Amino acid sequence: MKIIVVGASGTMGTYLCNEFEKEHQVVRTDRGNAELPLDITSPESIENMYRKVGAFDALISTAGPSFVGLWKDLDDAAFRKGVEGKMMGQINLVLIGQHYINPKGSFTLITGALTYEPQKNFANASAANAAVEGFVRAAAIELERGIRINAVSPSVIENSPHYFPFFPGEIPVTMKQLEYGFRKSVFGANTGQIIKPC
Amino acid sequence: MKIIVVGASGTMGTYLCNEFEKEHQVVRTDRGNAELPLDITSPESIENMYRKVGAFDALISTAGPSFVGLWKDLDDAAFRKGVEGKMMGQINLVLIGQHYINPKGSFTLITGALTYEPQKNFANASAANAAVEGFVRAAAIELERGIRINAVSPSVIENSPHYFPFFPGEIPVTMKQLEYGFRKSVFGANTGQIIKPC
Ligand SMILES: NC(=O)c1ccc[n+]([C@@H]2O[C@H](COP(=O)([O-])OP(=O)(O)OC[C@H]3O[C@@H](n4cnc5c(N)ncnc54)[C@H](OP(=O)(O)O)[C@@H]3O)[C@@H](O)[C@H]2O)c1
Ligand SMILES: NC(=O)c1ccc[n+]([C@@H]2O[C@H](COP(=O)([O-])OP(=O)(O)OC[C@H]3O[C@@H](n4cnc5c(N)ncnc54)[C@H](OP(=O)(O)O)[C@@H]3O)[C@@H](O)[C@H]2O)c1
Repeated sequence: MKIIVVGASGTMGTYLCNEFEKEHQVVRTDRGNAELPLDITSPESIENMYRKVGAFDALISTAGPSFVGLWKDLDDAAFRKGVEGKMMGQINLVLIGQHYINPKGSFTLITGALTYEPQKNFANASAANAAVEGFVRAAAIELERGIRINAVSPSVIENSPHYFPFFPGEIPVTMKQLEYGFRKSVFGANTGQIIKPC
Repeated sequence: MKIIVVGASGTMGTYLCNEFEKEHQVVRTDRGNAELPLDITSPESIENMYRKVGAFDALISTAGPSFVGLWKDLDDAAFRKGVEGKMMGQINLVLIGQHYINPKGSFTLITGALTYEPQKNFANASAANAAVEGFVRAAAIELERGIRINAVSPSVIENSPHYFPFFPGEIPVTMKQLEYGFRKSVFGANTGQIIKPC
């Protein structure tokens, strides 16, 4: 399978690329990528990336910037980080990518437990996650040619200890559990699902 | 109670204003309003509206434009209708309005069953609804001075028969049920809730 991993240089992306490329052709992309740069906040950049990659079987997104910070600093301008990044960035990966992906291919986007379990400082991610999840359910009944779409929604992951203080009482998701969440989406037959890896 | 109703000229807004003003001071606003015009897609317009109204006890929003149409026409540009309207429009009503509302006041936003029960042609509303619901849960743990926030999420309503063909098998929500959903939010003590009036 030819699998594009968006956010390949990140905590999740690095781990998932290493695991999936044991058995599949992995195409890595992120903003800082020398061979295949991609800024998901730009539809033109997304279109360019797909044009270079050509046909593919699955896209995994682990790129989803959002504003993290004090509620009093969360105004319309700050909110745009999650709107343009985690929300529209990932939605545009699908709206544009549907024209490049092989029949029966799949899109797997990243959301997170904040959709339903808010934490202080993360309201922007709660809204962006929820938007992506609403979009995933709706896109599943619209996409044609057997193309599937799901989201993986983990709580804080074990390889991100810098986030632990913000998520009191959350049992960290292991990288193996995270990987299995993505496996369920990419290699299973489900669509329109929000997969909780735990 | 002094209650601002956003989208006062609409199907929901007209009904709710008539009911609530039997017992409360209702302040009507919408884009076409001669006395108190408001375009929720503009933060400046929102700020102006609040400045004119002064202190208030509750805001009810029934304004939430989104793109309705064929999936093949849903690109980044079309998606912005729901992002700027139903999503950021309503989120900005809260981010800005929190500085004008009385202590223990409440915000009640409008979403809809499409969050979880998608229908063809409405993916933009599914995403915008979900974003608002994620924001409502997160804002509930951040707002200070006892300020509450909820969303009302009806399926298709009885006074919108033009929508019935798009919602096969959905039993229309009566206007009385819709009103009671808003009553639960405005006059109850809950916060961070998504109220399903049915
Ligand atoms: N870490 C957790 O505990 C956790 C838990 C639940 C959900 N999540 C969510 O999962 C996602 C990934 O988390 P992570 O910890 O792996 O993040 P991370 O380590 O910060 O990695 C993010 C990746 O996305 C790329 N990226 C950022 N902005 C981009 C843009 N505009 N266009 C293209 N690529 C971009 C980054 O590379 P470049 O900077 O080179 O572009 C990087 O490869 C985030 O959305 C996060 O909210 C994380
Ligand atoms: N009708 C249903 O069956 C149903 C069911 C579930 C959810 N919903 C949701 O409920 C909301 C209201 O539905 P409705 O049927 O009452 O809608 P509607 O009859 O079209 O009324 C919409 C109201 O919002 C105002 N408005 C539109 N854009 C605005 C803007 N940018 N700034 C300020 N005001 C604006 C309109 O007045 P102006 O044009 O003068 O601004 C009008 O007063 C929508 O978000 C809809 O998606 C509807």
